[in-house]
Amino acid sequence: MIAFLSDFGHVDPYVGIVKGVIHSIVNDTHVIDLTHEIEPGNIFQASFVLGISYSYFPKGTIFLCVVDPGVGSDRRGIVGAGGGYFFVGPDNGIFSHVSNELDLKFVEIKNKDLFLSEVSVTFHGRDVFGPVAAHLEKGVRLEDIGPGVEDITILNIPKPIKKGNSIQGEILYFDRFGNAITNIPLDLFDGSCKQDVKCLSISVKGHKFPVVDCYESGKGRGVFGILGSHGFLELSIYLGSVRSRLGVNRGDKVEIFCRPLDMD
Amino acid sequence: MIAFLSDFGHVDPYVGIVKGVIHSIVNDTHVIDLTHEIEPGNIFQASFVLGISYSYFPKGTIFLCVVDPGVGSDRRGIVGAGGGYFFVGPDNGIFSHVSNELDLKFVEIKNKDLFLSEVSVTFHGRDVFGPVAAHLEKGVRLEDIGPGVEDITILNIPKPIKKGNSIQGEILYFDRFGNAITNIPLDLFDGSCKQDVKCLSISVKGHKFPVVDCYESGKGRGVFGILGSHGFLELSIYLGSVRSRLGVNRGDKVEIFCRPLDMD
Amino acid sequence: MIAFLSDFGHVDPYVGIVKGVIHSIVNDTHVIDLTHEIEPGNIFQASFVLGISYSYFPKGTIFLCVVDPGVGSDRRGIVGAGGGYFFVGPDNGIFSHVSNELDLKFVEIKNKDLFLSEVSVTFHGRDVFGPVAAHLEKGVRLEDIGPGVEDITILNIPKPIKKGNSIQGEILYFDRFGNAITNIPLDLFDGSCKQDVKCLSISVKGHKFPVVDCYESGKGRGVFGILGSHGFLELSIYLGSVRSRLGVNRGDKVEIFCRPLDMD
Repeated sequence: MIAFLSDFGHVDPYVGIVKGVIHSIVNDTHVIDLTHEIEPGNIFQASFVLGISYSYFPKGTIFLCVVDPGVGSDRRGIVGAGGGYFFVGPDNGIFSHVSNELDLKFVEIKNKDLFLSEVSVTFHGRDVFGPVAAHLEKGVRLEDIGPGVEDITILNIPKPIKKGNSIQGEILYFDRFGNAITNIPLDLFDGSCKQDVKCLSISVKGHKFPVVDCYESGKGRGVFGILGSHGFLELSIYLGSVRSRLGVNRGDKVEIFCRPLDMD
Repeated sequence: MIAFLSDFGHVDPYVGIVKGVIHSIVNDTHVIDLTHEIEPGNIFQASFVLGISYSYFPKGTIFLCVVDPGVGSDRRGIVGAGGGYFFVGPDNGIFSHVSNELDLKFVEIKNKDLFLSEVSVTFHGRDVFGPVAAHLEKGVRLEDIGPGVEDITILNIPKPIKKGNSIQGEILYFDRFGNAITNIPLDLFDGSCKQDVKCLSISVKGHKFPVVDCYESGKGRGVFGILGSHGFLELSIYLGSVRSRLGVNRGDKVEIFCRPLDMD
Repeated sequence: MIAFLSDFGHVDPYVGIVKGVIHSIVNDTHVIDLTHEIEPGNIFQASFVLGISYSYFPKGTIFLCVVDPGVGSDRRGIVGAGGGYFFVGPDNGIFSHVSNELDLKFVEIKNKDLFLSEVSVTFHGRDVFGPVAAHLEKGVRLEDIGPGVEDITILNIPKPIKKGNSIQGEILYFDRFGNAITNIPLDLFDGSCKQDVKCLSISVKGHKFPVVDCYESGKGRGVFGILGSHGFLELSIYLGSVRSRLGVNRGDKVEIFCRPLDMD
């Protein structure tokens, strides 16, 4: 199976074209869309999304990841393998989050026999990465794609800081519901707090908010924190958008306290 | 086959993640997207969309329906079966329209062996409903999912009222083209009117409009009524949006007359 | 395989319904989305998108193309065959670009046994074109669909004009990145210019811009031309939108010079 992540959007036929190329090379595969609405050129967002998604796919899945503002320059194309998965894309940091979790070995994409016969300077998803993913699905070996590389590009991923009874982190991602996903992992909380989230509270932009045990418990309570499904603390509003209510942005600081604050 | 309806949108990887989970459980299935752009939390819209869609799918299709603002609370998860179809989702009214048309038997989702090993409080599409749909596709029996339930949640669906030579109804749904779909079913019209729609006229917000026999007949005629493809009277403009032209909203009243009015 | 192009969008369940109908007729096929975000009723855009896409699909692919403002009127439905591909849709010009490249034979869709039992006046994607594409996939022969037709509708496709050392063309399409794709094919350039694009320059709305060899070479240089991946000259900005920067529209004139201009 191939899982496909890109910033190609849904208006242009680019995703469909890449799928046509893949099925021209390997007929009986399945291409699943992870998302194609990464902000144009936003490598960090793509890396984060891949990091919270890959482990839910069956072993053997090939992740085709094309957010590639350097297309046509001398940036390398790479394939990573590890943990039972494969990752195909440009060497621009897009595999930073998965590299944090999996022990990946990378090769550089060099074997032109695997590409389309004409390679454009602007669409390597179609001409290089899609075909390489299809050949992987068909059984090509890593060593036939190109030589090993070790020094792949890794983005700086901000880490939460534990101090006393609080953890300081920041907002990494907003989803369609307006939920703000932070970089504070749930496994930093001690056991009793995870059992009873009433002992937790959050501070953002000088305001303090409670933590609740499910969305519906937050109904009518404005902003609240919640132990999110991606393994991180999230900020939410029941049927509303934290992003627009608080006017927060990516990178804004969040602090979580392991006992309740006096609320606003 | 699994047909998948949600309010997850296309920006986040949530739809892709659920598909990854499904394919981890049952390898050789096919997941078809019904839509993922239900307004966040709009259960009525999801129920309506499911109601106009299900019958076009092959018998045996499993409908995975996740519009679930109550996720993580004590609202039940249910599976309905009837008419050759299966329906998996929260017990919040999302199956109201199909329950109107099909004789469905429901069970409550109780068997935790069918879930992912860790169940979050915010993403049961991934952790509960997706896995249950996959196990259904794999052949699990209803009685192995949980005990029967009878009192499932049913939303109030406004019914049209016949009076004299007119039918009063309301607008239920706007599509991307700006067409307004009403709750007035075509089978309420008598035969001669369906044959010759020139004998029909519509009144909305005090304005009167003709009914035409196809979009192109309405070219240059402003707003018109048309016998829509979902079995209901619709309001349209040729290559334009009724929604913005008339400034109408869901729930606005519509009256159709079985002989022509003097037009504006 | 069926590749599906429409203006149905992603909010309504229309694409999913058509896929349900297709899978009801032919169980083990694969439907790939080309795009469903053609502007409502924009036949030229659909024809262009199909023209830059079809050749990347495997031979035997059936293109289901539904941008159909004339639905329900007496416009014909047609099926074209040629170059190893099949094209199903309304006879409204949607096959103009592919007809330019392939020698297609067309039949009119007449055999009602291939349609759904009830045909609406507004949704022939579901009732006629989807079912015909499914029956083609299942093996129905062209002559069993309907009689041959020769005079299909062809749109006027603006052609570039070569004069002296320049080529005059126009903007045909904007993609999600804001790139402007022109109608100036790369094979109109002489060999030396394609080798060294520094000898090329572009003029749009009285401004002159350089041509670069890849996106990244254009970083920090504002608007530039680039030899696009669809076989045409494109206008771009690195991680920006030409469309909004220059305020250009479809149909705006572009001139390319086969030696550098003095730049602005």
